[in-house]
Amino acid sequence: MPESPSPSPRGRKRPNPLVGHNIIIENVTPQVDDGRFPVKRVQGGEVGVEADIFKEGHEVLGAAVLFRAVADPAEEWQRAPMRALRNDRWRGAFSLARNADYEFTIEAWVEEFATWQRDTLRKRDASQGIASELVAGEALLLRLAGGGHKGRRGAGPADAAMDEAKLLAEETAAWARRQPPLSAPVRAATVWPVISDRRRAEYGAWYEMFPRSQGPNPTRSATWAECEARLPEIAAMGFDVVYLPPIHPIGRTHRKGRNNSLVAQPGDPGSPYAIGGPEGGHDAIEPGLGTLADFDRFAAAVQAQGMELALDFAAHCSPDHPWVRQHPEWFYHRPDGTIQYAENPPKRYEDIFPLNFYCADWQGLWEALEGVIEFWYAHGVKIVRVDNPHTKPFAFWEWLIHRVRRRHPDAIFLAEAFTRPKVMQYLAKLGFTQSYTYFTWRNTKQELTEYVTELSAPPLHDFFRPNFFVNTPDILSPVLQRGGRPAFLQRLVLAATLAPNYGIYNGFELVENRAIPGTEEYADSEKYQFKTWDWDRPGNIKDMIGRVNEIRRMHPALHRLDNLRFLPAYNDEILFYAKQEGSDLLFIAVNLDPFQPQAADVEVPLEAFGIGEKEEFEIEDLLGGYRGRWRGRRQWVRVDPAQIPAQIFAVRRG
Amino acid sequence: MPESPSPSPRGRKRPNPLVGHNIIIENVTPQVDDGRFPVKRVQGGEVGVEADIFKEGHEVLGAAVLFRAVADPAEEWQRAPMRALRNDRWRGAFSLARNADYEFTIEAWVEEFATWQRDTLRKRDASQGIASELVAGEALLLRLAGGGHKGRRGAGPADAAMDEAKLLAEETAAWARRQPPLSAPVRAATVWPVISDRRRAEYGAWYEMFPRSQGPNPTRSATWAECEARLPEIAAMGFDVVYLPPIHPIGRTHRKGRNNSLVAQPGDPGSPYAIGGPEGGHDAIEPGLGTLADFDRFAAAVQAQGMELALDFAAHCSPDHPWVRQHPEWFYHRPDGTIQYAENPPKRYEDIFPLNFYCADWQGLWEALEGVIEFWYAHGVKIVRVDNPHTKPFAFWEWLIHRVRRRHPDAIFLAEAFTRPKVMQYLAKLGFTQSYTYFTWRNTKQELTEYVTELSAPPLHDFFRPNFFVNTPDILSPVLQRGGRPAFLQRLVLAATLAPNYGIYNGFELVENRAIPGTEEYADSEKYQFKTWDWDRPGNIKDMIGRVNEIRRMHPALHRLDNLRFLPAYNDEILFYAKQEGSDLLFIAVNLDPFQPQAADVEVPLEAFGIGEKEEFEIEDLLGGYRGRWRGRRQWVRVDPAQIPAQIFAVRRG
Repeated sequence: MPESPSPSPRGRKRPNPLVGHNIIIENVTPQVDDGRFPVKRVQGGEVGVEADIFKEGHEVLGAAVLFRAVADPAEEWQRAPMRALRNDRWRGAFSLARNADYEFTIEAWVEEFATWQRDTLRKRDASQGIASELVAGEALLLRLAGGGHKGRRGAGPADAAMDEAKLLAEETAAWARRQPPLSAPVRAATVWPVISDRRRAEYGAWYEMFPRSQGPNPTRSATWAECEARLPEIAAMGFDVVYLPPIHPIGRTHRKGRNNSLVAQPGDPGSPYAIGGPEGGHDAIEPGLGTLADFDRFAAAVQAQGMELALDFAAHCSPDHPWVRQHPEWFYHRPDGTIQYAENPPKRYEDIFPLNFYCADWQGLWEALEGVIEFWYAHGVKIVRVDNPHTKPFAFWEWLIHRVRRRHPDAIFLAEAFTRPKVMQYLAKLGFTQSYTYFTWRNTKQELTEYVTELSAPPLHDFFRPNFFVNTPDILSPVLQRGGRPAFLQRLVLAATLAPNYGIYNGFELVENRAIPGTEEYADSEKYQFKTWDWDRPGNIKDMIGRVNEIRRMHPALHRLDNLRFLPAYNDEILFYAKQEGSDLLFIAVNLDPFQPQAADVEVPLEAFGIGEKEEFEIEDLLGGYRGRWRGRRQWVRVDPAQIPAQIFAVRRG
Repeated sequence: MPESPSPSPRGRKRPNPLVGHNIIIENVTPQVDDGRFPVKRVQGGEVGVEADIFKEGHEVLGAAVLFRAVADPAEEWQRAPMRALRNDRWRGAFSLARNADYEFTIEAWVEEFATWQRDTLRKRDASQGIASELVAGEALLLRLAGGGHKGRRGAGPADAAMDEAKLLAEETAAWARRQPPLSAPVRAATVWPVISDRRRAEYGAWYEMFPRSQGPNPTRSATWAECEARLPEIAAMGFDVVYLPPIHPIGRTHRKGRNNSLVAQPGDPGSPYAIGGPEGGHDAIEPGLGTLADFDRFAAAVQAQGMELALDFAAHCSPDHPWVRQHPEWFYHRPDGTIQYAENPPKRYEDIFPLNFYCADWQGLWEALEGVIEFWYAHGVKIVRVDNPHTKPFAFWEWLIHRVRRRHPDAIFLAEAFTRPKVMQYLAKLGFTQSYTYFTWRNTKQELTEYVTELSAPPLHDFFRPNFFVNTPDILSPVLQRGGRPAFLQRLVLAATLAPNYGIYNGFELVENRAIPGTEEYADSEKYQFKTWDWDRPGNIKDMIGRVNEIRRMHPALHRLDNLRFLPAYNDEILFYAKQEGSDLLFIAVNLDPFQPQAADVEVPLEAFGIGEKEEFEIEDLLGGYRGRWRGRRQWVRVDPAQIPAQIFAVRRG
């Protein structure tokens, strides 16, 4: 044998590379970037784990999912069995009992007795002698009874004398499978994290309330008490979350005037995003709204109405924010020593100073911002809507959200990052519970189908939870500007039935559609002025919103995203889709044309829902009240926007 | 601010998590399991690297691929620039100059001067004052001239006084881009490996020669000299590799007789896979063939004919192998102390003892097997065809191939693993250069299209190199048994034009198709008996094989797999596809029906090949000689298996 030019493995005393590595576990799902980021699920749900598991040769394998809630000190692993599907694919599942961080890994091992029994049965069936095999089988059983690789002796069938029949019995194999295997299991090298959020993370209807516009007096801010007066109506519409833009003191310097003009007139309140004034910063309340005690009363009232409060978190300051004087080092400085205002050239936001997350005192700044979250959490705010996270470092968000969630697993962070897809997705990966989306700009059947299909399946569905807002203070989309009431109803039904999380911004229920021409900005936006609304003005769609939210509550099929299935409709103006959860099955048809009735032949893939080709089933349009009976794959729908531009058919069988 | 229940980051003296981590580099291609295994490419080729690269905010980024051949001591990284495509996707490329292992990673950084210049130009264009910006820009240039983050001072435009025009000039930005950036680049956390094989790994025609059947005397083994006499004919057919099944002494114990009978008759030579006898083991030559010196002469003759030799490596032993006496601990033992023969119950292979790769002396066994590879490498055998690797531990192959390739980067390993897909793929991942495939069992248009499409694109194409054998000593597929000469020609053209690596086993050129009924085994297989062939027997297809191999050599489009494109043909019996490499463009039509002529309208996606809708171009059938002119997308082909069951159209334009 020739000399080896490299050191002999014997000389280097290499460990046997087979130990712990002779079974391959790969292609594990669910995972995000192979465990770099957690998969998102909710409490009470189940995590179905799949993997390719295989070994050289033909031995019978066993496998299990090991899972645990992440705790300090570490909990013991719990085990869920995996079973072989086909093509070396295995599956197991575990339940998320808690609102906590979880992790899982996989173990696999050789079932030596099952392998022996299978092979021996084949030999016996081929009339081959098996005397020697029986001796070997008995020896295997004895080793299993001795505790396998764990060496802890248990009691078992090998304690008694074994004959051929008993050695080859299925019950003996079953006993053997319950013992620790003879060789230590191979454990996957990775531990995959899973976030078990509370259920509100996955399902909820949001109402964005601009607090200073909730009252009756157009010359001043509404008060918390006046905001509170509106809550019964919002609750009656069926909303789960009341979200408020910033409620903090507003800066004076470079305050914006009406319709975003550069100079404010006396009495103009300024944009609430210009956070911080003489009265305080991110932990203070704009005096026009009231005091912190007033806020606490309002927050309690929200809770009393069965809803939950969400606050805005905009990590920047007005020039009058206390931090500007206390911590000038937290800001950017121009060559002349002045502090740099926010800009996206040539756009300038002179009423806002961005924070320098890279400054020398980054720790002080980051902790101060964490303190803001903690402050409002202590006042009952567990849901944080984050303004423009894509202009702050990714590492900050990962640090912040991880730290907050370690203390408060029920905290929910919604990312308002209207930016490039990969940046939006990365923010979701590193911790944001939910994300705003491009929904407002997806209008055609093709746009909606492609976009929502992408959102409802892995990889995105494992980490990115969309929240479909139909409008925001910054987005009055063209279809709403042009399409009138039918467009509002159409977009409402799309958002509320395509996505389990959706939201409206106040004014939507009033079909408010006056824009600054050529923009998506509201005319006379309440972002820059005091305003009042007639909450009962003619043409409002509050009843329909309430009806849609009621349907959402009644139908578990609308509580998840990944059960969505777009179905063929032979008219580009009709979007037709199904949602199913157990026996709850909905077919939804939306007319995307706000101006005229549209009809379409539609295809119902009966087999996908376990419906027979000849089976007749009842459908009821939960919006319009129509009841009928369907049979067969091909059906016909007609949707008239002058009535209701959508139909939500509940299926009743048998 | 509330107290934090967990230790303050300041208290723990955390490093600033932004340093080195504020640019995200992800979704890098090419990669196999994110760098756990190497991507396979060949020397002289190029590795196109893509990645998603992004950062918070809107700064201008720069990026580069860092690459190097793996050497000891480590070479310096070389750099190839990356450029932004769209949607935050970046691309760069580097060339593989050597037959070696390579690795690459990615760096990205902020182009601070380019960012400044872009923003300042926008402000100037909006007629905003830029006096303060110019001061900042000059300061940036000075820092760049000072060597950026590297601090090594160079000479540059900032040495001279800068006016507005010069600061905003494109040439100044270009100079700035060539300097080390002001902040240290962010480097990806992973180093991705690439194997740069020699070109034979990717492209070659193999001829499997059963050496003892090459001579004129049916009562004894052919000799190496008689094998040598056949080489000119094999070279004339255009083959690149001559592959031999095991050439070692054959065991006596339980020797197999003709047609795999359990008892050999006197004079029966036994299966060459029963390796090892009194004359020696894996490093000895079966005496009937000749001596090691004879083998060396044969090997030199193969090389002189412009071909290369490949040997079989079957890691098991006959009961008479010297290792059985020298190292009984390397084998499996039954309860009665005898050594366990190979079996796959109820099948038994009593002439073969499997090796126990898990035995206590695993190191000794593994090194002995490594020694076998080294021994034959020293005798000029750089290509190893591995028998049944899927019945030996994965860790052994990874260890063996990695060690051999470190010494001999030109070594090539072909895996003969006819087993489950994931096992085959894993063997390729962990080091096998090429793999046998399911090609022999893919016959219909749908089967071929699906299978070869999967093979020709990532993920498989990055690590799994198919070698399409049309037959083997164990596989005489049903289509060959039934389809006669047309089937042989059809399968030849499919293998030779779909895959850059393909092979035939001797007898194929003679249209040998006599099987043991109901099996894929050859009748009177030379695996179990002495045999002679009339190498010029009537009906042979040697000319056509020579023609196909000549076409392969002339056409670089046939030297790669990933340039394959299946095209529509409106007849399920016509497979129509294109291969393109630069200006070399082939359209290939194969009649899958060996019994009758078939015709089809076919679609040529002109735009994919840069051909105008109205452009007329010449086509020449390189097999049948037909010349014609095509214009437009829709063409018509007719293929008559009584003539030649395939057409290979070369396109000539202009």
